[in-house]
Amino acid sequence: MEAIKVFCPATIANVSCGFDVLGLALDSVGDEMTVRKTVKRGITISKIIGQDLPLETSKNVSGVAGLAFLEKSDYNGGFEIEIDKRIKPGSGIGSSAASSAGAVWAMNELLGRPFSTLELVQFAMQGEKLASEVAHADNVAPALFGGFTLVRSYEPLDIIAIPTPTELFATVIHPQIEVKTSDSRKILKTKITLEKGIQQWGNVGGLVAGLFQSDYDLIGRSLEDHIVEPIRSILIPGFDDIKSNAIKAGALGGGISGSGPSIFALSKGEEIAKKVAESMHETYQHIGIPFDVHISKVNTQGVKILA
Amino acid sequence: MEAIKVFCPATIANVSCGFDVLGLALDSVGDEMTVRKTVKRGITISKIIGQDLPLETSKNVSGVAGLAFLEKSDYNGGFEIEIDKRIKPGSGIGSSAASSAGAVWAMNELLGRPFSTLELVQFAMQGEKLASEVAHADNVAPALFGGFTLVRSYEPLDIIAIPTPTELFATVIHPQIEVKTSDSRKILKTKITLEKGIQQWGNVGGLVAGLFQSDYDLIGRSLEDHIVEPIRSILIPGFDDIKSNAIKAGALGGGISGSGPSIFALSKGEEIAKKVAESMHETYQHIGIPFDVHISKVNTQGVKILA
Repeated sequence: MEAIKVFCPATIANVSCGFDVLGLALDSVGDEMTVRKTVKRGITISKIIGQDLPLETSKNVSGVAGLAFLEKSDYNGGFEIEIDKRIKPGSGIGSSAASSAGAVWAMNELLGRPFSTLELVQFAMQGEKLASEVAHADNVAPALFGGFTLVRSYEPLDIIAIPTPTELFATVIHPQIEVKTSDSRKILKTKITLEKGIQQWGNVGGLVAGLFQSDYDLIGRSLEDHIVEPIRSILIPGFDDIKSNAIKAGALGGGISGSGPSIFALSKGEEIAKKVAESMHETYQHIGIPFDVHISKVNTQGVKILA
Repeated sequence: MEAIKVFCPATIANVSCGFDVLGLALDSVGDEMTVRKTVKRGITISKIIGQDLPLETSKNVSGVAGLAFLEKSDYNGGFEIEIDKRIKPGSGIGSSAASSAGAVWAMNELLGRPFSTLELVQFAMQGEKLASEVAHADNVAPALFGGFTLVRSYEPLDIIAIPTPTELFATVIHPQIEVKTSDSRKILKTKITLEKGIQQWGNVGGLVAGLFQSDYDLIGRSLEDHIVEPIRSILIPGFDDIKSNAIKAGALGGGISGSGPSIFALSKGEEIAKKVAESMHETYQHIGIPFDVHISKVNTQGVKILA
């Protein structure tokens, strides 16, 4: 195989209670990327459509992730990358992770899968480091493994794939306002009360158990975040209304997607996910903020080949 | 049925990463309790052997739990309780929880199970409140549900039964020193760093996933506590040696049982659990502290009828 075209999923990190550890992959929102083997060594970004992003390898997340891949590989050639960038940078649904993950997944396919998925996560994390100064894994892990993932530990990196109930759908609304990842990290407190910590790890345990048992009610009850959401939601206009209206419309629960400004809700079944989208739509229309809404099944495959 | 004799299991609360939320039931360590219907209303504790504990209903945890049961019941009679107390109070393996849970479970059986297990947990929590001023559920929940349990939330009370891998064994050593529950709670800090919180909820998620998947390695990797263990272990002589020697002997991991002073380790299979017991035995013999060691399969049934 000389070239491959892949779908690179958007992802929701944190998933309410799982700040910095949980994430999930989306199915109907993502970039498309074509990766081609070249005789010339190194990584060339030949074309980017959809967004104004740097073509220079060392300044592009897929370039940097690709260089990390090449550095560990014994392949003597290089790769050329074309990106159809459909996920808006800064939306909070893993735009940089999709490009980083997609690039290294495609390269691995083209070379006959020399690396494990965990190794691909490590290469893709270098792209994340370029994007946000932190080599976090909570978006690239679900983008590469698919479904829900848990980053149990960073040293050593330990990623657990969590099964996804078949009827789980996500609704995501992206208000077109800018929230810098660095700002949304800066406003977090470095200390939390033990009491809130206990609530949080109770909910992470509950969410993981709910996913294993396809217990949708338990999933909903566990989608609580008493630590990060109360602080970060200040930066997102209409957050409380969007969330409470989504739950009124039948969502199991929801919260901030990654560091925002996107807001997500999880629902049992596509019907409810659509009603939730309508309620989000109405709420933001009422407030007067431009937005995109996405409805997606949870993607259990991660990055995948396009026909 | 007029009378019933039950086994009331000892329990390990917290289970390293799951401070205040996780617990598991033991199979070979526990009290025996005989509960008899009486025409006379109220609860009578007629006999306690094994330990010097109050017979007065309002001062005995099984009496108080029983009164909470009676208060919600439409039964017109009462109960008489005999306790063969084999779990030492203050050992950190749920001595008060065993008595509270056993009493209400037996009463419920005698009346044809009018209450759910969750309701029984709520009655038994009143016994815990008498014992330690806090109506905690992390010991009574596994004592009543069996296996591993997660207390996801207290308000409302939400308890999740987690499946138990079939080869999971616990080894517990109880050094005969006194650590007051109130002291071991007092030395805890009320604030923790967000960073340690993230590690902790990553590990809770990992432990729950490991239990669902019977992934013994993952269970072991998740048995980490960066918050409570470093502080509480100061009160337990030889803690670090006991734990590191247990792991050298093959244990998956371990930590403080409840608020201590007992120390537990989990192992895959009885053979390894026995070797871990030997290593614990040697360590404390070397230090010169008297102790009891228990080896037990995880009890998936909770309180149960004795022949």
